[in-house]
Amino acid sequence: MIVIDGLQYSHWDRGIFEQLREGGVTAVHVTIVYHENARETLTRLGEWNLRFEQHGDLIMPVRNAGDIRRAKALGKVGIIFGAQNCSPIEDEIALIEVFRELNLMIMQLTYNNQSLLATGCYESDDSGLTRFGKQVVGEMNRVGMIVDMSHSAERSTLEAIEYSQRPIVISHANPDFFHEAKRNKSDKVLQALGESGGLLGFSLYPFHLKNGSDCSLDDFCDMVARTADIMGIEQIGIGTDLCQDQPLSVLEWMRNGRWSKVMDYGEGSAANSQWPQPLSWFRDSRDFPNITAGLLKRGFSAEDVARIMGLNWLNFLDQGLQPQG
Amino acid sequence: MIVIDGLQYSHWDRGIFEQLREGGVTAVHVTIVYHENARETLTRLGEWNLRFEQHGDLIMPVRNAGDIRRAKALGKVGIIFGAQNCSPIEDEIALIEVFRELNLMIMQLTYNNQSLLATGCYESDDSGLTRFGKQVVGEMNRVGMIVDMSHSAERSTLEAIEYSQRPIVISHANPDFFHEAKRNKSDKVLQALGESGGLLGFSLYPFHLKNGSDCSLDDFCDMVARTADIMGIEQIGIGTDLCQDQPLSVLEWMRNGRWSKVMDYGEGSAANSQWPQPLSWFRDSRDFPNITAGLLKRGFSAEDVARIMGLNWLNFLDQGLQPQG
Repeated sequence: MIVIDGLQYSHWDRGIFEQLREGGVTAVHVTIVYHENARETLTRLGEWNLRFEQHGDLIMPVRNAGDIRRAKALGKVGIIFGAQNCSPIEDEIALIEVFRELNLMIMQLTYNNQSLLATGCYESDDSGLTRFGKQVVGEMNRVGMIVDMSHSAERSTLEAIEYSQRPIVISHANPDFFHEAKRNKSDKVLQALGESGGLLGFSLYPFHLKNGSDCSLDDFCDMVARTADIMGIEQIGIGTDLCQDQPLSVLEWMRNGRWSKVMDYGEGSAANSQWPQPLSWFRDSRDFPNITAGLLKRGFSAEDVARIMGLNWLNFLDQGLQPQG
Repeated sequence: MIVIDGLQYSHWDRGIFEQLREGGVTAVHVTIVYHENARETLTRLGEWNLRFEQHGDLIMPVRNAGDIRRAKALGKVGIIFGAQNCSPIEDEIALIEVFRELNLMIMQLTYNNQSLLATGCYESDDSGLTRFGKQVVGEMNRVGMIVDMSHSAERSTLEAIEYSQRPIVISHANPDFFHEAKRNKSDKVLQALGESGGLLGFSLYPFHLKNGSDCSLDDFCDMVARTADIMGIEQIGIGTDLCQDQPLSVLEWMRNGRWSKVMDYGEGSAANSQWPQPLSWFRDSRDFPNITAGLLKRGFSAEDVARIMGLNWLNFLDQGLQPQG
């Protein structure tokens, strides 16, 4: 079975890569930047090149969807680069193609806050896609870089779905019928996403789950089933949002970047400022088989489980990463 | 015949590309930066992507030597990216591989001045390859980025030839037996370059030629013949250094970058601060057939002329651009 994790930002080292392989993960969409600008993104890419050099027996870069199949054949973990913010392209539309040449495959238009492109899910007013944002979506469509609206607000997300000529992704979020959170998505968004051929990756980040870190596997699988009814069985996948072994400083960087003088707690609070406790049935990447088993137990067919665990992501990437015309 | 120009920095527009094609140029090594840092280099690359989009009927990017053969078959001009300074990598060794992924194929270790890597040909003291410079040469060897010492001083050049595990290039310069100039090269350098499998591209920039803008084609071809005797017929090519249609501001940028508060006139002088007048027999890229005719007239065989005009460059790039085992 091809297993694809639609988002992680773990503390990338040999141990993490070994766990991914042990958990049967064929490819993982890794966040390479949160708030890094163009220059800083080059440094992150350089760090990844060094990891490929040092751990080439375990991981390999994904330059197209075919590389995911090659990773499977080689028993390696394919690494798919993504950005959780549009900070790498700064205010320069030409940088989309330049970073796509460097294998940046997926880019969020916003990370919680208003960006130059669209509105993030933590803003009080959502003004939708900006003038620059519309041009960026068109350019991402052209070069085969996938639009990700995981951290965007509702109107912006609906406009991205409508404006984009190619299906978009919400790589790591859950339906808000399951758990109300600024990061989770309404039925309206899910329906529009599904109808447009888009993909939702289910998050296992406790802040996105009913009962948080105590969320049961059964409840998670019920959510998957109900979402499949709304979106279609081919429009859903996994995007764990696993942030394993990261220090608190990384959480603070994610939440505050360089934009805030006062501590922003994001999905947490002053009283709950730490990384959340992991789920008992998904402690790290070695627990992917638990999700597979849960979905089978819930009554999904083996075929549908294979779709959810990776095949839908693979098919989506197969289409989405090809340059236009 | 495959014709390769080993260096140009013309004012790239449709007219220039049409002239390249009209002159029968199969591929050209274009300077994308002089003093630009990493971030600025991304902008230059973005500008080239736009040119490929707008003039795709005339030009195409060269991502490996095979693309030069494809350009020939398609009747297009292949564009080979190079940097005349090491400014794009700043002080970060990982940026070599990152820019190589963006098809930066050739990089000079210095541009006239001392750099972090080596000494330029305008410095009074030449301290050779630096500690960082040695590591950079090793990394360029590894990823298949070609070391170019056109603007470097003698000791640094000899050390680069010796230290590099792969042949290096002097893409645009002439022997100083033909015309003494800081930019031209001694017999010692030419011999070492030839013996190591390196390549010299003959410059048609008047400052590098006997009698300057009045240099005759016959004298130029005599120089080629004498150099062939020193280096071997397979170690020489063309690197015109054509800087067509560029304003004076570009010449000043090349010469002064951001490093000088007083006007540096480079190869010119206060009394002769402008672009040199072009040669009567090489006004622009349409005149490449004049060089071919001159070499044939001088007595080179058709085979040897084909080597000098492009085949030697093609073979050199075929080897040099491949990553190391």
